[in-house]
Amino acid sequence: MDAIDVIRAKRDGAELTPEQIDFAVDAYTRGTIADEQMSALAMAILLNGMTRPEVARWTEAMIRSGERMDWSALDRPTTDKHSTGGVGDKITLPLAPLVAACGAAVPQLSGRGLGHTGGTLDKLESIPGWRASLSNEEMLDVLTEAGAVVCAAGTGLAPADRKLYALRDVTGTVESIPLIASSIMSKKIAEGTGALVLDVKVGSGAFMKTAADARELAETMVAIGTDHGLRTVALLTAMDRPLGNAVGNAVEVAESVEVLAGGGPSDVVELTVTLAREMLAAAGITDRDPADALADGTAMDVWRRMITAQGGDPDAPLPSAAETHQVIAPSTGVLTRLDAYGVGVAAWRLGAGRARKEDPVSFGAGVICHAKPGEKVTQGQPLLTLHADDASRFDRALEALDGAYEIGSDTSVTGLQPLVIDRIS
Amino acid sequence: MDAIDVIRAKRDGAELTPEQIDFAVDAYTRGTIADEQMSALAMAILLNGMTRPEVARWTEAMIRSGERMDWSALDRPTTDKHSTGGVGDKITLPLAPLVAACGAAVPQLSGRGLGHTGGTLDKLESIPGWRASLSNEEMLDVLTEAGAVVCAAGTGLAPADRKLYALRDVTGTVESIPLIASSIMSKKIAEGTGALVLDVKVGSGAFMKTAADARELAETMVAIGTDHGLRTVALLTAMDRPLGNAVGNAVEVAESVEVLAGGGPSDVVELTVTLAREMLAAAGITDRDPADALADGTAMDVWRRMITAQGGDPDAPLPSAAETHQVIAPSTGVLTRLDAYGVGVAAWRLGAGRARKEDPVSFGAGVICHAKPGEKVTQGQPLLTLHADDASRFDRALEALDGAYEIGSDTSVTGLQPLVIDRIS
Repeated sequence: MDAIDVIRAKRDGAELTPEQIDFAVDAYTRGTIADEQMSALAMAILLNGMTRPEVARWTEAMIRSGERMDWSALDRPTTDKHSTGGVGDKITLPLAPLVAACGAAVPQLSGRGLGHTGGTLDKLESIPGWRASLSNEEMLDVLTEAGAVVCAAGTGLAPADRKLYALRDVTGTVESIPLIASSIMSKKIAEGTGALVLDVKVGSGAFMKTAADARELAETMVAIGTDHGLRTVALLTAMDRPLGNAVGNAVEVAESVEVLAGGGPSDVVELTVTLAREMLAAAGITDRDPADALADGTAMDVWRRMITAQGGDPDAPLPSAAETHQVIAPSTGVLTRLDAYGVGVAAWRLGAGRARKEDPVSFGAGVICHAKPGEKVTQGQPLLTLHADDASRFDRALEALDGAYEIGSDTSVTGLQPLVIDRIS
Repeated sequence: MDAIDVIRAKRDGAELTPEQIDFAVDAYTRGTIADEQMSALAMAILLNGMTRPEVARWTEAMIRSGERMDWSALDRPTTDKHSTGGVGDKITLPLAPLVAACGAAVPQLSGRGLGHTGGTLDKLESIPGWRASLSNEEMLDVLTEAGAVVCAAGTGLAPADRKLYALRDVTGTVESIPLIASSIMSKKIAEGTGALVLDVKVGSGAFMKTAADARELAETMVAIGTDHGLRTVALLTAMDRPLGNAVGNAVEVAESVEVLAGGGPSDVVELTVTLAREMLAAAGITDRDPADALADGTAMDVWRRMITAQGGDPDAPLPSAAETHQVIAPSTGVLTRLDAYGVGVAAWRLGAGRARKEDPVSFGAGVICHAKPGEKVTQGQPLLTLHADDASRFDRALEALDGAYEIGSDTSVTGLQPLVIDRIS
């Protein structure tokens, strides 16, 4: 078999055979298929698609390129969540300890942010002392000790995906639903979780701008999970406006701690509880209500153990930015729109995100939203507070916010997405 | 501008702007667009196509990546021919001197063979002493002296095409009509000819298997030529059976010399004269009949001067292969089919062609056809003679010929292509 035959087959619209897929993924990982050959194949996949059996096999081949983790030594079922990424999406922070407090184990390998969407590890790293890199043994120790662990994926996990993702990033072949789905699912299956809930974001601040695209991605991922014996459910959720009030790193940790303390913004609480119920149900736990574990402080206890086990101090003051700038409501009325993408780009430009993988992030930078769509605002009140280490960053952040919000005189706001748009299982 | 934007535009079906095309070709030639980016773009072009303005600009950008030759110092018009390649296609050998004998200059940059189709330079190199590599000054000297020159393209000519062709070869992106057309035309336009006749082969032994594909390629190339101010005409010609009786290197030179001496197979003579008329007409010469120049020996005189001027000895014996094997007609009847591809692969396996660019070819190897489709054959007569330097090559050549010919009892042969299928101008 040779690379050109495989490329030609997909180029000409054929379904790749299991042998062709195994060969392509394995040979690319070992370097005997060159980058320029894999990028041509990726473009042919993007334009001609893959069938369900092809996507399942492609995912399988990426999993087999590395190790597959095993949590069978634990005395409880494992369950995890993956979000496709959004603005203000700190849900993993309250969710992982909440689900652990209700009796499941959460072994979450997570990532860093790039562009306008934040990364869970960047947020957690704003906690003094907390470290993202754990060995497999340390991961098991934290899981046993706290019931939940959130850390960086090691290089041994789906190395084919790591190499392919870097290639797709520079060759215009990121936006392929089969390739996105197999990339996400290969890592989640290799991570060894027994159940998985996918939070597929839809809207301006998400990777998927339309519900139709998000549904296709969700269905493809659920099919892959199912084909690999993983109990998988997907929710399509709103990303037309930011999630919660805080967008950044330390500011999102603070908001997550509010939720764990029984408070916090209602949308963050609602989505956290909804996802917790799904994760628990997928793990076969139906006798616990996660709302109780928020109210009685048991989720907070797990959070403190989880942060402490990874070297973090849950009581240490969080970093804050030196400079702030307020955006004032220009009129009185109802906030009819607060665009997730605009706020996400503003936070990124304030220093909360990175443009290149190797860039550092500012832990204190970000945006606080003082009103959410549908809420009344009064002329002269603060609408947004921008936080940055350096006041020179405000101008470009404000440019990103230009046109990102609207105040109307009508009290009924139409066109907002429901928080949970759909459920796919 | 960046490479990913250009890839995405073509991926999403947009027409590339002149600026995007200039950037892509120039940056790739200079190495600031990586191979894996250009191969993704090439696959997107293959699958989504290019408009006429895009192809014209792409060709222009490839021409501008190198030098453009200039023959304005000559006292006569220049005209050239390009064939897309076939089995037994030695037409350049009698054609270039014939056209020169009729008053035009023929500055032909030619190539070597790869796979089952032969290369003009490989054939000419079987003439003792003849050399393919000339400087631009030497090229002008030969043109001035003989009126025709056939030599290898220097590295300064369309370097973008050279680099892109090597990439397409390993990434399954050869079979794109816009990329094939721009590759051929960029070299022909950079070569500096004032008129061009394209011989687009159709059939099993050709790159284009169907008349529809050949017509699309021909129309694309004629449009490019026209858009660049080059008088361009294309003929679609038969390649379901070999052209002439000889397929190989030295055997094709010998057959070409027969044609120049006023003899030779009727199909080779007919196509040579037809193409000569087109080349002369495109150069504005309409008062000379090339058939006369074959009959009166003036074309042969040019041939001898042309070969001599490039170091060759037109009177030296040509190399011959040490071993021969005859394929005998198994029955009496009419030869209804002699498949160009089968004969081409047989000649290739006998040593006349190469599998990799760096392989040598055998000058003496090849196939002689003793009958052509439509001719009567008698049981026991030689149908084909195989020539090779080593008798061990016959088995695999005979495998390629298995099923490649048919003898029928009916005297009327149907389904053969006319020698000239169509003319596009």
